[in-house]
Amino acid sequence: MTTLLLLNASPRRERSLSRRIAQTFIDQWQASRPSDTVLQRDVGIDHPPLVTEEWIAACFTPDEKQTPANKQALAYSDAAISELSLSDIIVIATPRYNYGMPAALKAWFDQVIRIRRTFSFDPAEKTWPLSPILHGKKLILISASGEFDFHPGGIREDWDHLEPHVRTCAHYIGVASADIHHVSVEYQEFADERHDSSVKLALEMVGTIVDKLTLPLAVPY
Amino acid sequence: MTTLLLLNASPRRERSLSRRIAQTFIDQWQASRPSDTVLQRDVGIDHPPLVTEEWIAACFTPDEKQTPANKQALAYSDAAISELSLSDIIVIATPRYNYGMPAALKAWFDQVIRIRRTFSFDPAEKTWPLSPILHGKKLILISASGEFDFHPGGIREDWDHLEPHVRTCAHYIGVASADIHHVSVEYQEFADERHDSSVKLALEMVGTIVDKLTLPLAVPY
Repeated sequence: MTTLLLLNASPRRERSLSRRIAQTFIDQWQASRPSDTVLQRDVGIDHPPLVTEEWIAACFTPDEKQTPANKQALAYSDAAISELSLSDIIVIATPRYNYGMPAALKAWFDQVIRIRRTFSFDPAEKTWPLSPILHGKKLILISASGEFDFHPGGIREDWDHLEPHVRTCAHYIGVASADIHHVSVEYQEFADERHDSSVKLALEMVGTIVDKLTLPLAVPY
Repeated sequence: MTTLLLLNASPRRERSLSRRIAQTFIDQWQASRPSDTVLQRDVGIDHPPLVTEEWIAACFTPDEKQTPANKQALAYSDAAISELSLSDIIVIATPRYNYGMPAALKAWFDQVIRIRRTFSFDPAEKTWPLSPILHGKKLILISASGEFDFHPGGIREDWDHLEPHVRTCAHYIGVASADIHHVSVEYQEFADERHDSSVKLALEMVGTIVDKLTLPLAVPY
């Protein structure tokens, strides 16, 4: 059995395009594999706490010395890391804000990328001391952008601070680069036929990815 | 007279290196130009609100139709944009979290980059519809990183999601790329002689930048 984690980062409820496409992904997945588990965390509505000095101090306090205040500071992080650890497939649905992640999504990454929980630190290693602890997860990144052409070679390639950043963070939550699928909807602020085509293509891509991941041996990709 | 805006994004109080270097910048500036004004906003301690559906709706409501609830949703944004508009030089002091901005700093950008306030939208323009409204500001970015070599050509160049992202956002708050100075402290998590050298170099660079900006005609750069 596979566990999916659906992480919605849009502050919009009904009007969110990233939510709609993510829900299509989940619906198609469940139609194909009804007994899989879907966990959900809504960082767009229920904002994760931002990092405080108390949070940092608690992270660096050994487990056996944790005070109730330390534990309280880490409660969100503990819960978010627990469900992340249980998950095989992470679906992150997010708008692009100011060319990158909304602060709410970055806040989630800042809560789950944590020393001794999701990465280790080797003080003897002077160049690459950090190593991820989690491995073997897959990530479906579903993004909705007002503008367009953020892909490599596109006219806004240098302004893509969303996918490359998520890709780097994903390494530390157990997702290898080859296991990231990005479904990108663009042209949202133009609301024209280019946007309609982009939504159509995204929905087709969702179907292809669900097929690929639910039937890995039967469907070549 | 010049107005400076000091924006601290570290959640650490005494222990923050980015705060210390930013304070050195401000102290040296004030020693040179004691009658300049320094505004301060501490996003690391007093976190900006994250974007909500109500905030988005308020942004798109014309001024003459703003309800008290709309105005309340935009209160932080209004105040932050006011002081930004007044400022000639913006000093952003921030730690690097998970290879990019801490969520608190991104939350500030998400509050100040706002339609009809800091950028305009031309619906007839089908490729580049957004234009910044503010112009002519300078940005001093002071960053503190645990790791190192994020510069172009460095071993972590592809993992630098801080400077390029700030650079793109800066365009929308009136800072041209040539007017950005980045003072980067690295190796913080190693706490070794490489880190000491990095701090020393950063402090020298602060002096050079203060000289350059306070005495633009007397000191060639």
